[in-house]
Formats: sequence, structure tokens, C-alpha cells
Amino acid sequence: MNFDSDNQSGVSPRILESLVSACSGSASSYGTDDWTRRAESALGQVFGRDVRAFFVATGTAANCLALSAVANPWDAILCHRQAHIAIDELSAPEFFTGGARLLPLDTDSGKITAKDLHASLDTMPAQRPHNVRVSALSVSQATENGLVYSQAELAQLADAAHQRGIHVHMDGARFANAVATLACEPADITWKAGIDVLSLGASKNGALAAEAVIVFNDALARDFELRRKRAGQLVSKGRLFGAQFVSWLQDDHWIEMARNANQTAQYLWATLKTHNEIKPTWPVEANEVFVVMKRDLLAGLKAGGVGCSGWYRRSVPQSINMSDDELPVRFVTSWSTTHSEVDVLAELLHQLA
Amino acid sequence: MNFDSDNQSGVSPRILESLVSACSGSASSYGTDDWTRRAESALGQVFGRDVRAFFVATGTAANCLALSAVANPWDAILCHRQAHIAIDELSAPEFFTGGARLLPLDTDSGKITAKDLHASLDTMPAQRPHNVRVSALSVSQATENGLVYSQAELAQLADAAHQRGIHVHMDGARFANAVATLACEPADITWKAGIDVLSLGASKNGALAAEAVIVFNDALARDFELRRKRAGQLVSKGRLFGAQFVSWLQDDHWIEMARNANQTAQYLWATLKTHNEIKPTWPVEANEVFVVMKRDLLAGLKAGGVGCSGWYRRSVPQSINMSDDELPVRFVTSWSTTHSEVDVLAELLHQLA
Amino acid sequence: MNFDSDNQSGVSPRILESLVSACSGSASSYGTDDWTRRAESALGQVFGRDVRAFFVATGTAANCLALSAVANPWDAILCHRQAHIAIDELSAPEFFTGGARLLPLDTDSGKITAKDLHASLDTMPAQRPHNVRVSALSVSQATENGLVYSQAELAQLADAAHQRGIHVHMDGARFANAVATLACEPADITWKAGIDVLSLGASKNGALAAEAVIVFNDALARDFELRRKRAGQLVSKGRLFGAQFVSWLQDDHWIEMARNANQTAQYLWATLKTHNEIKPTWPVEANEVFVVMKRDLLAGLKAGGVGCSGWYRRSVPQSINMSDDELPVRFVTSWSTTHSEVDVLAELLHQLA
Amino acid sequence: MNFDSDNQSGVSPRILESLVSACSGSASSYGTDDWTRRAESALGQVFGRDVRAFFVATGTAANCLALSAVANPWDAILCHRQAHIAIDELSAPEFFTGGARLLPLDTDSGKITAKDLHASLDTMPAQRPHNVRVSALSVSQATENGLVYSQAELAQLADAAHQRGIHVHMDGARFANAVATLACEPADITWKAGIDVLSLGASKNGALAAEAVIVFNDALARDFELRRKRAGQLVSKGRLFGAQFVSWLQDDHWIEMARNANQTAQYLWATLKTHNEIKPTWPVEANEVFVVMKRDLLAGLKAGGVGCSGWYRRSVPQSINMSDDELPVRFVTSWSTTHSEVDVLAELLHQLA
Repeated sequence: MNFDSDNQSGVSPRILESLVSACSGSASSYGTDDWTRRAESALGQVFGRDVRAFFVATGTAANCLALSAVANPWDAILCHRQAHIAIDELSAPEFFTGGARLLPLDTDSGKITAKDLHASLDTMPAQRPHNVRVSALSVSQATENGLVYSQAELAQLADAAHQRGIHVHMDGARFANAVATLACEPADITWKAGIDVLSLGASKNGALAAEAVIVFNDALARDFELRRKRAGQLVSKGRLFGAQFVSWLQDDHWIEMARNANQTAQYLWATLKTHNEIKPTWPVEANEVFVVMKRDLLAGLKAGGVGCSGWYRRSVPQSINMSDDELPVRFVTSWSTTHSEVDVLAELLHQLA
Repeated sequence: MNFDSDNQSGVSPRILESLVSACSGSASSYGTDDWTRRAESALGQVFGRDVRAFFVATGTAANCLALSAVANPWDAILCHRQAHIAIDELSAPEFFTGGARLLPLDTDSGKITAKDLHASLDTMPAQRPHNVRVSALSVSQATENGLVYSQAELAQLADAAHQRGIHVHMDGARFANAVATLACEPADITWKAGIDVLSLGASKNGALAAEAVIVFNDALARDFELRRKRAGQLVSKGRLFGAQFVSWLQDDHWIEMARNANQTAQYLWATLKTHNEIKPTWPVEANEVFVVMKRDLLAGLKAGGVGCSGWYRRSVPQSINMSDDELPVRFVTSWSTTHSEVDVLAELLHQLA
Repeated sequence: MNFDSDNQSGVSPRILESLVSACSGSASSYGTDDWTRRAESALGQVFGRDVRAFFVATGTAANCLALSAVANPWDAILCHRQAHIAIDELSAPEFFTGGARLLPLDTDSGKITAKDLHASLDTMPAQRPHNVRVSALSVSQATENGLVYSQAELAQLADAAHQRGIHVHMDGARFANAVATLACEPADITWKAGIDVLSLGASKNGALAAEAVIVFNDALARDFELRRKRAGQLVSKGRLFGAQFVSWLQDDHWIEMARNANQTAQYLWATLKTHNEIKPTWPVEANEVFVVMKRDLLAGLKAGGVGCSGWYRRSVPQSINMSDDELPVRFVTSWSTTHSEVDVLAELLHQLA
Repeated sequence: MNFDSDNQSGVSPRILESLVSACSGSASSYGTDDWTRRAESALGQVFGRDVRAFFVATGTAANCLALSAVANPWDAILCHRQAHIAIDELSAPEFFTGGARLLPLDTDSGKITAKDLHASLDTMPAQRPHNVRVSALSVSQATENGLVYSQAELAQLADAAHQRGIHVHMDGARFANAVATLACEPADITWKAGIDVLSLGASKNGALAAEAVIVFNDALARDFELRRKRAGQLVSKGRLFGAQFVSWLQDDHWIEMARNANQTAQYLWATLKTHNEIKPTWPVEANEVFVVMKRDLLAGLKAGGVGCSGWYRRSVPQSINMSDDELPVRFVTSWSTTHSEVDVLAELLHQLA
């Protein structure tokens, strides 16, 4: 019963098979191999246009390399206060950008709207050269709270950003889950909505270690291969990433895995909400379930072998009345989480009630 | 007949098997999994003492993170002019160290001796705070020219460095090949010889993507995990590296693979030297063969399907009389190179004679 | 009637005289001259102990070099949301520290208390290596809101910081004003209160361009001269700073100038508060007066030749009920501001009433 | 008898007078004052066209900020091995550029010719993304060896650089001395010769602390004010630099001072060369005299009160036969060095002969 994080899940057999196949025999190095080319081509097909794709080993590297292309060292990057880049990547954003500043926004909705963006910019000091200028907006799809931006929300937000001379980055560590939720085309919530650069993560959704920066704005791709090399992210055997992405994308494998994770999250939520000491904190829109529960109850679950994470107290919306003996808790499902794991959790909850 | 680079070789079946096994099921993330712990433990056994090991995806990252631990942004790092860090890693050393400076030394021997070190330091401007101070020496074992430092050479060099207050880093992208040549214990040419930090590469010798920074000097390990995280090198599924290193080290698999590569290099050299238009540039001590040959001959080999690389003209020692119609050429063998590949090359050479 | 900023004031005749005297004849360069030594010695006397002083050209450089000594690139620095380093120095803190992160705290009091510090640290994510760790606290004395920390407040705050393993930096751009207000010894509110490193500014208080980093914690001074040189802050003619600091400190000149500025601020506040459309935002404790006034009134003042600055709307405490036709406004006095300038302002206010 | 360095000389009375005048009364801050505007305008007149000028406190800052505008963090900068940026500015070039690499060229002539540039680029590894790409060339006028490039030499060199896609920076710490030697217009050896950005130093030639980055290529000026602010080089009282530059440039004061320094250097050289134990190392073309002399002789001079500097052994051209008991020595003259100082030296030499 591992609901700790989707990055703890195993590797999908289809991806593993592809990886094994790619490992035999010699191949051209540093991303000039056939597997890498096939992966780039597959991404082009999935996104419905030519794209520039740069494969890297971690989500941190994907996010921060992408940010370095949209923020000079003297610029600022707006993001949500709960964003992964703002909390969980140490000071990697500053490292990769050469010292750009993150400006976290706190919104009750857990998302950033076009209105939030304008309000933030309008009240921000903007005297050149003293105050940092916002050059980039980073949004997460799905968000760190498990919410999903609609196509319209993204399009309005990106439009507002572009009006203000701001590029838009999307942290897509759980992009597949958002696509599965919206049942849309990947293009609809990326370049067609105005996203300039996307960090696309496969590692949380069936792959071993495979992340890509997808650049939709050609000007931003200039020298990107130099950024990647300089950051020690150009692996010699590029087939490592190529083979994973080829099989991940093939026959909608990535979407199917994400759909399973999302459905299991709904099933889990249906179970949790029957318990009278558990309150929802955010709607369940992707593969994460956020609740508030009594400390005792959490202790009981953990003692019973349930993996889940105590979450940041300040991530809980003001509107939720949380007492001192309550805690925010996060449950995450993955492509490999089964209904029977949830059933065991349900039984445990029943016993603890 | 791929003699282009050992980083183009495939993955050893034993490593692949281990990797496949590690990919199933959930596992704790960010390097807290069992495979990572087993790999660390195996490294401790191989090096005959406790070591701190930090796994990363590329040799560039391993080298440059290691350098960042031994050089402040206002320090300098001595290395050979032919060193990989000085030529082939873009400006990654500067990026990771926050702007330390590489000071490349040109030596006829292709190695750096204790005497070279002293001479270099003695003639270097050293007025604080105007001139950079050398805080680190980086040596490659085996070197970029395919040479191998003896244990005595390393011990003298590291001793000289320590006398001058300088830490010693070893770029061990081909460390296994050096161990195989010397038939020594890994400890003999690392911490027992005074090496403070080692970049240990498996990717060129049978692995898919597995590099480690091995820190022998405990003070240098402080905050190293933060350096790695900040550089986007902490993968979520640590078993990727753990599984590779466990099987790589097990039952001397790494040494056996390196020994095969070295022996095949000797076999290749025995073949090449029979041709009267081919001159040696460096002794063949590991898995690389450097020669000077006529342009026409190289063209003939390439037309015949031989993969090898024209090399840097200025890497050729002054003592070799190279005419304008000659070129330096590099041949590299790997764990998977076979004698029959060399035999085909021999036949081709015979035809071209 | 220039109440725009104390950095627009002229240079004190005594300082200018000293500067002129220092400019004739040859002198040893790069801070090895007599004027620099005399200034260091004078600082030692003023602070009642040996200090390491590093002179630089700007407050930005002083603050950010000081921060670089207390924060690694992977650390965080706590400061008030209104702090100069957080708002008005572009991304210089990130540049000098190599990418450390500022974590701004918003407090109603305009200061940071020991309790604020503990509360902030206790609710902050602190999972190594994912979350940034706070290694430094930066306080401004006087604050950006013109408030002055008492000796007791500082001692409690620094003690709390040290308990948590955090170094304390003081931004003393208006340090002299605070000393004048408290009528204390400089030592009382610096090293005796637990401050580790101080940016001491003279430029706003009678000097032309003279800032110093005073390091009270010897370990932090290590390599500081290299930090300064590398940042292009080591001027060749060190007497520029030496001569200014010598005369600034001599015979309590700095304190007298600050006292004049403070008293004029009180006189100004006495004038402003008689107007029924002007509300105070912060107590006047140093040489700045912050008020809220009607837009029309501000326009009238500006039309009448009064120099003052519209201030950040979000700097106004929640407790103040500010309508849409009101604005926060800042008035600053300096060593050279006269009562008659205030009297002219008073007359203008009377006319506009 | 101070021949140590021109940066040890005092400040010209005319410059001091201007500075004193600028120090009284209020003035707009951060470079928006009248003195700054007048200085910019004066520079425009001197260079015969509109220029963008950015004033800073040190030559290190001027050089390194300029380099940051012509080199990305993944680029390389060619310069002479004896260049000030390569030897005497610690790792400031790496700091300001975010990690670009200096590639020092060793030439017998002490200058870099168009031919040297092409030869260097032609033999340099250039495989993207592995090898650094040269994006900038930095030349010093006058050079660190006291040589002066002719207009034709510069034009050919800059033309060659531009053909290869390389921007040209000029380190003009002793630019005035070069103009005085060539008796040319400043434009002739800067923008008309193809220089893109110039570091113009006044501090070594009569000023107290005044350096400017003059940008001739408009595209390079974009965001330069942000680079300066972020580097802590934007002083609040801009008149510090404005007043110095206005008087420095007025009525050819700068050229007259440089001419005096140059003529005194010739007078000094005429004296030194009569001694049979003194050999010239470089022609005397500006305000520096480089010789080789016996250690005993140098000791005698120093004992007699002569200030001069032992110089880098490896800076001596191969063609000069230097024995072990000889040393390279540098003598520098300034605007304020007098013939009578040289005469005293001559007398001393006579006694020591």
C-alpha cells in the first residue's frame, strides 16, 4: 500500500522491454543514435508539430534548464507558492538560471489565473534597474495540489503573460495525468494554449528515468544543447532516454498508465471520504488525494502499513478549519497502484473508525 | 568495426539483467533504496574502506561536482592540457564550481609528474588577492592519451600536491582499465596513493549510464548531497544507478571487461604497427591506440567501414615528426570489441598497403 | 525641499577635506595605504575591539558580499519582506552568493522578532536535500520602514538565530541613525548583541561613496578579500574609502550627522501630523517618515517643489485603513536637511489644507 | 621615485577641483544626475559619435562586465597570455560572465595579430556541444607589456574576429597612453577599427577611481544597466564618476597627462639603456619600461629607494637570453612622474655601475 509518491513505482514492462532491446550492440553516442531520433519524432507526432526535445535525467534538470531559457540572471520567475520548483528542488532554479529569482504567488485556488497574474504584476515594484522584472511564469500541470488547469484557463493565463512580455513554462511532471483527465490532445494544453516550453516527465508514470524539455518557441531552443551539455545532462548513451520515450508514447501507453493512476485516485478518494474524520483539502483531479485527518488516524494508518505523506500545513486553504490535532496528508497513486491496495486501506480505515 | 569510442558500446548482459530485476515493484526514492545501499556497500568492499559514494548520470557531472568540492570559485585547478575536463566538457567545470579556473599544463610525457607540479607552481604568479591560487589538481587515470600512472607516480604526485595545500581529484572515466593494466587493488591507486576524490565511470565499460563520485576525504563530502541535488543529478529512482553498480562490481565483472578491452587494444596495436605508414604516438597502456597515419590511409579505412577518430593535431608529442599529409588517429576498444573485428581491420590494412 | 532620499544629499565638508588631502602624492595601492589602515584602526576603536573591515563602493556590494560569507549557494537567507536586499538590489544577492535564496518574512511590526524567526523555521519544509536550509538572517538597522531595533530585541533575535545554527547579518545602510536614536555604543547593537557581520554605510550619511563590511566572526573573514577582489570591488586607490571613513568617524562626526537627520525627521513629522488628511504608517524612529495621504495632497506637494516618494502599497500595515484615493508616501531627511526646508513644506501644507 | 605602478599616483588637481565642486548640494541619485549626463556627453564628443557609457569603480568591474556582454557562460574569450584579465583579476572574468572560459594565447610579439587569431581558431577543437566556442576576443591597448597596437593592426584583427563571428573587447586601462603615442583620434582605434566594447580607465591616469564601459555596438548595451546594478557597481552618488570624467576629458587633459607619462618613460628608458647590465625586453611604446637586469642591481636600486616591480619570468620573450642571476623588472611612469625622479635614479645607477 504505497501511496507515498508515484516516483516510487516500478517500471512498466513495455518500457523495460524497449530499454533492454536498445542496450545491445554499438550505437552512436551523445544523442545522435536512432532511439533518440525516434523519440523526437514520436514527440512531434504526439504534439502535432515539429518540436525540439532535449532529454535529461531528472525533473529538476528539466525544469531548471527550461527556466534558464526564459529568465536572465537578473529576471524573476512567477510561480505558485506550492510549486515544486519553489519548494522541492533546493536552489537548483537559481543555479541553472545563474541567479534569477523565484517569486511565489499564494492563491486560494491553488492555481494561478490571468487575474492573479495581472494583480501581482500591477502591485510589484518595477523601477529599472532596482527591481527584478518578471520574465517568466511557471505553471504546473497537474499542479502540486493535484489540480488540473482547463485549456481555457491556460490559454487566458498564457495570453495575459504574453501581453506583459512574459514567457510561459509548464512543469509537466504529471502532464500525462492532466491529459488523461481532460481527454484532450497534448497540443491543446501546450503550444496551442501559448505554452513556450514544457518539462515533460515520464519517470513518475512508468519510466525509469526519462525527462524531456520540449521547446515550442524556436528562439528559446537556441544554444539549449549547450545549456544541457554544460549542466552535465548530456548522457553518452542517449538510447537510455530514447528507448524509454519511444515505448512510453507508443500506442498511448503513457495516457493509459496515467488514466489508471487517475481512476485509482478517484477510487481511493471514494473510500477516504466515507470516514468522518477525514476532510478533503483539494478536489481530486489527477492522481493525488489531499485530505486533512486526525493525527491518531494517520498514526493508525502508518502502523497498518499504509505509505502516505504528512503534508505542508501552510498548503491547506484558509477556508478549511484545521484543528491542532489534525494534519494535512497526501496520497498518490501511480500507473501500477491497484484497487486491491485501496481495498486493504479501506478495511484498515473501517477497523480504525 | 567500431573503434570510435568505448561510450558507443552496448550494455553488458549481466548489468542489464540486474537493471531489469531492479525495475519491478515499488522502491524508496531519491537514493534511499536497497540497490543504492548495496552499491555503496560494494564500493566500500572494492576500495577496502568506508567510502562516500554519490551516483550521477554523466561523467561530466561526476567530474565537475567533484571539482566543486575541491575548488572555491576563486581558486584554480591544475590539469593536463589534454584532459577531458579541459577540452570536452564545454564550460561545465566553471558552471559547477561557480567560476573556478582550469590551468592546463602541457607536458611531453602526457602525464603530470611531481616535478611538473612543483615547476608549474613555482613559476606561477601568486600575489594574493590578484592571482588565482591552485587549490586542486585533477589527474586522469587512464589518461586521455591512453597512458596509465603507476602507483608510485601517483603517490609522489599526490604527496607533492598535499605539501602545497592542494587536493587531488582523479578522473576515472577509464579507471577500470588502469586497474586491469596495473593488476593492483583499487585502493592502491586512489586513497592509499593520496587521491582525495575520484570520479568513477562505468558507462564506458559495460554500463548504460552509471557514474559515481567517490569521496575519500570526509571533509569534502560535507554538503555534497546538496551539491548533487542542486545540480539536478539526484534521480528519483536511485535503483537505476544502484543496480548497475552492484552487478558491475560483482565478481570482478568490471575488471574482466576492462581487461578484455585492454587486451584487444594490444592485439589491435600489434596489427597496426606492421603497417609501414603508421607510427605510434603514445604507448598503448589501456584501451586506446593513438597513431599517426597518412590521410589517404585513414580515408581508405573509413571507406572500408572502420570507425575511428581523427585526433587533435596538437596532442601529438613534439618528438614525432608529422608531415602535412599525416594525421593523428585514435582507436578505442571496449569490453565488447572482438578479435575478429581487429582481424577484419587487418585484412583491410593489408589490401590498402 | 529634497525629502526623496538621503543618498541624494551632498558630501560633508569635513569628509571632503579629508578626501582632498588624501588625493595628493603617491600611495600604495589596493588597500595597503595609510588611509585604509587608519580607517580600519578607527573602526576598531569605534566598535571597541579588533574588526576586519572590507571597504567597497556600494551598499549593494557590501550587503551581498556579506551575505556570500554566511550563505552557501544551496542555503536560504531570511529577511523582512520590505528589506532593501529583497526589493531594491535587483538579483545581486543571488549573484554574489552564487544562487542562495532570499526568504522574505512579512510581519505586521515591520521588524523580525525571535518569535517570528522560530515560527517561520518551524513551519518551513526542512527535508534534506530537497528543501533549502536557512543559514543566515539579515536584519536592517534602522529598518526600511524607519524603525529601530532595541539592543534587547537584537540580542534575543540573534540568540534565537544562533540556536538554530543561523548567522546574523545586519544591513547598516542607516546604522548611524540607529546608534543616534538609541544613544548606545555601536558594539551594543552589533557584536555584543550577536551580529556576525555588518554592512556599514556612510554614503547616505555625509560621505560620497563609502561602504564597509565589518566582520565580527573571524571565521567568516577567511577568503573575504578574495570575494571582494573577484567581485571587482577592490579599488586601486584605497585612500578613496580610507579618507572618507577616517573623517566620518573622527570626533563622532557620523553620529552628529545622523542625529541631525533624526531630529529633522521628528520636526518634519510634527509638521505633517497636524494635517488632518495625513496618517502615520510607522513610528518615526530614525530619519524616515512614512505616512498615508490623499493623492491630491501629494500632487499638490510635488507641484510645490517637495521631493518625496510614493511608496509600496503593500508595505502599509493591515491595521491602517487606506482608501483608494490615498497613497503611502515616504519622506527622508539627511545630515544636511534644514528646519527651514521643513518650514517651507509646512507653509505649503497650510496653503493646501 | 615611485615606478611601481601608475595606479599609485595621486589625483590631478583639475579632477580634484571638479570632484569637490560636484560634492556640494543635493543631486539626483543612481546616475541620473547632471554630472553623469555631462560625462556621457563629453565621451560622445571625444569618440565622435553617440556612445553608451556605464561608469564603475574598478578596472576589474569594467573589464568583466564588458566581457559578460560578449560571452555567454558556455563561450570562450581569447586574450593574450599576459593580459590583465588572464592574470591579475583573480577569477572575476568567470564570476561576471557566469563561467565563460579565458583562452590565453602566447605570442612572441606580445600582441595578437589577425594571423595569430586565425591560426588559433583553426587548430582549436570545435565540436558542438563538447568544446567551448570562442565568442569574444579581448585586446589590451596599451598592452600589459607596454606595447601599442597601430590602427591598422587593430582593424585587421577586429575584421578577422568579426569574420569568425567574434566580438572584440578592448581593455583600455592605459587607453589614453596609446592615444597619446599614436597621436590619433580615439575613434580611430576603437569603433572605426571595429572594437565593439571598450573598458576605458581613468584611475591610472590622474583620476581617483573612475572607469567606464563604452559600448559601441548597441545590441550589446541591452540590459547592461541591469548587469551593472546586479554586480553592485551602481553607486548612489553618480557624480563621483561624472565629475571625474568631465574634467579628465576637458581640454584634452587626459591626453596631456598620458603624454607626460609616455615622455617620462622614454626619458627613463634613455637612462636605463646606458647601463651595460640592463637589457630591454619590449620596446617602450607607452608608459612602461620592461628590462632584464642582474638581481644585485635590482637589490641596489631598491635599497636606494627606487620603487619598481620584479616581473613574471615567463613574460620574457624566448629570444632574450636571460641567465639565472637576472630578473625581469617593470618600471611604470604616470602623469605625475617627473624628470627629476628619473635623474635621481640615473645618479643611483651611476653609483651602482
